[in-house]
Amino acid sequence: MRNITAEIITVGDELLYGQTLDTNSHYMSQKLDEAGFSVKYRVTVGDVAKDMNEAFAQAESRSDVTLITGGLGPTEDDLTKPLLADFFNSEMAINEEALAEVTEYFESRGRKLTELNRGQALLPVKCTKIRNRYGTAPGMLFERNGKVFVSMPGVPREMRPMVVEEVIPELKKHFELPAIAHRIIRTVGIGESFLADKIKDWAQALPKEIALAYLPEEGQVKLRMTAKGSDHGTLKNLIDEAEGKLLPMIQEYVYGYGEESLEEAIGKILIEKNKTLATAESCSGGRVASKITSIAGSSAYFQGSVVAYQNSVKEKVLGVNLDTISEHGAVSEQTVREMAEGVRGLLNADIGLASSGIAGPGGGTEEKPVGTVWIACATASGVETKLLHLGKFRQNNIELTAVHLLNLARKCLAKN
Amino acid sequence: MRNITAEIITVGDELLYGQTLDTNSHYMSQKLDEAGFSVKYRVTVGDVAKDMNEAFAQAESRSDVTLITGGLGPTEDDLTKPLLADFFNSEMAINEEALAEVTEYFESRGRKLTELNRGQALLPVKCTKIRNRYGTAPGMLFERNGKVFVSMPGVPREMRPMVVEEVIPELKKHFELPAIAHRIIRTVGIGESFLADKIKDWAQALPKEIALAYLPEEGQVKLRMTAKGSDHGTLKNLIDEAEGKLLPMIQEYVYGYGEESLEEAIGKILIEKNKTLATAESCSGGRVASKITSIAGSSAYFQGSVVAYQNSVKEKVLGVNLDTISEHGAVSEQTVREMAEGVRGLLNADIGLASSGIAGPGGGTEEKPVGTVWIACATASGVETKLLHLGKFRQNNIELTAVHLLNLARKCLAKN
Repeated sequence: MRNITAEIITVGDELLYGQTLDTNSHYMSQKLDEAGFSVKYRVTVGDVAKDMNEAFAQAESRSDVTLITGGLGPTEDDLTKPLLADFFNSEMAINEEALAEVTEYFESRGRKLTELNRGQALLPVKCTKIRNRYGTAPGMLFERNGKVFVSMPGVPREMRPMVVEEVIPELKKHFELPAIAHRIIRTVGIGESFLADKIKDWAQALPKEIALAYLPEEGQVKLRMTAKGSDHGTLKNLIDEAEGKLLPMIQEYVYGYGEESLEEAIGKILIEKNKTLATAESCSGGRVASKITSIAGSSAYFQGSVVAYQNSVKEKVLGVNLDTISEHGAVSEQTVREMAEGVRGLLNADIGLASSGIAGPGGGTEEKPVGTVWIACATASGVETKLLHLGKFRQNNIELTAVHLLNLARKCLAKN
Repeated sequence: MRNITAEIITVGDELLYGQTLDTNSHYMSQKLDEAGFSVKYRVTVGDVAKDMNEAFAQAESRSDVTLITGGLGPTEDDLTKPLLADFFNSEMAINEEALAEVTEYFESRGRKLTELNRGQALLPVKCTKIRNRYGTAPGMLFERNGKVFVSMPGVPREMRPMVVEEVIPELKKHFELPAIAHRIIRTVGIGESFLADKIKDWAQALPKEIALAYLPEEGQVKLRMTAKGSDHGTLKNLIDEAEGKLLPMIQEYVYGYGEESLEEAIGKILIEKNKTLATAESCSGGRVASKITSIAGSSAYFQGSVVAYQNSVKEKVLGVNLDTISEHGAVSEQTVREMAEGVRGLLNADIGLASSGIAGPGGGTEEKPVGTVWIACATASGVETKLLHLGKFRQNNIELTAVHLLNLARKCLAKN
């Protein structure tokens, strides 16, 4: 079976000037790769007709599928639509369905359609409209001599669901793709090199159909197995077998699969065990609560949080003893323990989590440098605490504190 | 003066597969743009000789400067060096200075040089070596017919200092660059199309030296003016003058400049006015607190937050009246008003912010559909509230609630 090649074109001066980080190329790469396409080229050009036209022509000459994002807004610097209309020799006309959709989009938000927005329903007649459920600029699909071009808006929250819900399914109708099977196993609490060392014999013995990748994130490592071949069932069996050998080596670090986040995995355990959670956050500043409440349905198990940024809040609201803070400091095992117990009682939760540390850049001392963080998890059977030695960078320290605290909750839940 | 054009080529299968986010292109774009180069193209290819050679040839034909990252490691799949040697018809030889540097690099870390690493000192004789202070693979600079190629390692912490300390200063010796001036004006509370409509006459009358771009983010739009010419002072004056005409039209929406975030701008106002802030969050779930505490030094003005995800927490901790919730519901002007006043008193803050709404996907009713959100800001002089009609998507609703609430705080601070 021949490879179906794909190319990604992102359009925007703001990308070339380095004012906007291009995460769209990355997302499209992932989704095309998962579907079995071979992504061969990514190109970024500015809002310049000549450069865009050359990129379109080059992509058509060398790739089966070309995905384009950007340049679709209602303002004058957005050129993608008229240029693609020319490129595919197509007239423009108001697409009634698109007009109804963009009108509805505005009306449902209690706003009136402007002339500028009405123009978003003007589409090349040769394209197939792709619905944009999350914004006003529709996507467009063109086909010529077996090659497919898709243009999408550059706003990630509009583009991402469009890729997954509309574009990939549509492309699968146009091309015969190789069978492909993926599995992502999510781990937390072990670094990439330690994980690689632990499983190196297993990795070397993997069957040739399976490619392994380590995908590190803040405090976590995803292991991805990809198998390509001609039969999906065979590939799935190969991956099942490999996973069966892998898991006993790393079970304590594994919390989930695929796109499941740590906060989502913990939510499932809480529902299953019929337990509730509350957090008392100092240095994590609400990041843990924010992660937990990002999950739909979290109100079933999340009571709430007290972000105690000042010591007075730790004392007055969470009931931390005045003497504890003055004797041991706000960043101490004793304080974080009382915070966890305090929020558990105050918010009437089964599990109380707490963080207190020095996120930086200021506030460090020789004894407690920036990156010193205490975390705690209080349950009916007692309090577990952990001291973290993180780095110098504030954002990183906040994020890692949140991940470590969620992982501590996961471990406590396994025992309670 | 003619534009000096630049192109960026990043090499690596891991980029095309979507396993590694390409932040190198973004960084190089920024640094080239700041120095006055016109970045026109960015290209990503895999570790494939044919694709890399084609990218090199195309870049040489159309761009003055080409920066390449990736494919410089010691392993077999790293092709950049031998391919560039061929491309510039150059023999390879051990570069004694590079050998001394890589030897020192290993010795200073107590490790012995392996044969594999010794190979990193083997360089095309036609290139100028560029020192890598943070790793083992040197950079290379080639020149032919006035065009310059620079190859750098793909590891960001090696590449970034190399760009700033070595490559940009070297390039400035090769090219006479235009003067360039940038200004980004940050707005909140108005959509891109409404903003464009409001300032369209001004935009059309901009002097030809100034290019304007709209950069939308969640709930915000950045306006970017870029001026190029021969004299920096003249350009700055042109931008000052344009801004002077623009601001009166959009003053109420403008909160800052450049990279400054809304939470950072509010932090500055709070410090300037010597006021403190606290938040009571229901549907925003800690997102507002998390944004505020992402700013270094926020402990100077942020008291803390009560994330009141359950009604019991609204009542017990924030002191919201039982009757208010039972009569008007948790998502109501009355409740959010009492939450803002409650947290202001409880945490002893000058300003109390509150959110209560239906983030979705569940919990909506006909009367209060998903996306219905009340926000409030309580100060010594009273409470301001606002009803938001957001969309259907949880993450978006949370993020937009946070931005709207911060904007409400900004407006209240202007009056108090």
